[in-house]
Amino acid sequence: MRSVTCQLAVSLDGFIAGPNQSLENPLGEGGMRLHEWVFSTASWRAQHGLDGGEHNTDSEVVAESTQGVGAYIMGRKMFGGGEGAWQESWTGWWGDEPPYHAPVFVLSHHPRQPLVMQGGTTFTFVNDGIEAALELARAAAGDQNVAIAGGANTVQQYLAAGLLDELHLHLVPVVLGAGERLLVDVGNPMLQPTQVIASPAVTHLKYRVVR
Amino acid sequence: MRSVTCQLAVSLDGFIAGPNQSLENPLGEGGMRLHEWVFSTASWRAQHGLDGGEHNTDSEVVAESTQGVGAYIMGRKMFGGGEGAWQESWTGWWGDEPPYHAPVFVLSHHPRQPLVMQGGTTFTFVNDGIEAALELARAAAGDQNVAIAGGANTVQQYLAAGLLDELHLHLVPVVLGAGERLLVDVGNPMLQPTQVIASPAVTHLKYRVVR
Repeated sequence: MRSVTCQLAVSLDGFIAGPNQSLENPLGEGGMRLHEWVFSTASWRAQHGLDGGEHNTDSEVVAESTQGVGAYIMGRKMFGGGEGAWQESWTGWWGDEPPYHAPVFVLSHHPRQPLVMQGGTTFTFVNDGIEAALELARAAAGDQNVAIAGGANTVQQYLAAGLLDELHLHLVPVVLGAGERLLVDVGNPMLQPTQVIASPAVTHLKYRVVR
Repeated sequence: MRSVTCQLAVSLDGFIAGPNQSLENPLGEGGMRLHEWVFSTASWRAQHGLDGGEHNTDSEVVAESTQGVGAYIMGRKMFGGGEGAWQESWTGWWGDEPPYHAPVFVLSHHPRQPLVMQGGTTFTFVNDGIEAALELARAAAGDQNVAIAGGANTVQQYLAAGLLDELHLHLVPVVLGAGERLLVDVGNPMLQPTQVIASPAVTHLKYRVVR
């Protein structure tokens, strides 16, 4: 059955980005430490057109995480940093061929024509809220899942609204001390652990949101 | 080799107690939700002189967690709530036979004679800091481990001072939204996952603090 899913790397103290995020450093200070484990995996490298990398537990998790995703939803901050980024020339952080290879619906306050990128990614800008975006994403995904790509604020909105089915956290053993927290203002969701996969670098935790 | 260890139940959003802790409700609002899983285990019940309970993964983890502990260290807030509790008549929250069955060193600002309880627990009050308490606890523990019993502030001090060897978190799939956080003001410890045990109720995460 198709689900609305979300996967995020999170520090042991609950941050998905470090402090002082900026256009130059969208992950914030120390935020890159949450993602180092992924860059060395063979599956991440393959998704980004690169050879090599390690074939390990983490690589299997990364490969599985994009399987069955038919469409993505993304917050406007994740698509582009700040109001300046809403110029027509801004096409996201990911270059000409973003790693989504699927329709991406971007929550936005600004009307803008869809952006067709290379490799199957299209960015469609949705101005009328999270439920409208989900409806469009579901239609685009067909019988596949919809993944909430981030950032924190967007995940919080879907979780608080009871629209998220699965939360998949990659718990990274670092303490950032400050930054952007994932689990704030999300109400009191009922979460059920459904899968735990351990590696030397990360603990992969999958939760089902119970209704 | 003997270690300085610590085990705590923590919510998915990083709290070890809920908001508005008081003498009547030392775990704070909702804080009991972090501990419900433990009360049903056979090993916890046995430690507290009760029959029955479930023999499951969680019960094994609970049984193991007290093995090899030769002495405990506890913050003054965990021993007794507020200044009023420092009357000589206050003997902790745990009744005549506390579940420690070992020497417990209580960090305190008030000189007080040691309290000998039933079942092998003694409370010794240490007025000259965390290192002095650790030295006493190590001596009492002999070739066994020293466990930091809590609360959050005491764990933070030992972790920040580089005196903790193992952090064992019982990650409970609840979101408390507010309360007492565990991982604040602990600096930037290097943590290495050494064991992950999953159960339907809790994910047990063991980290080694790397120096």
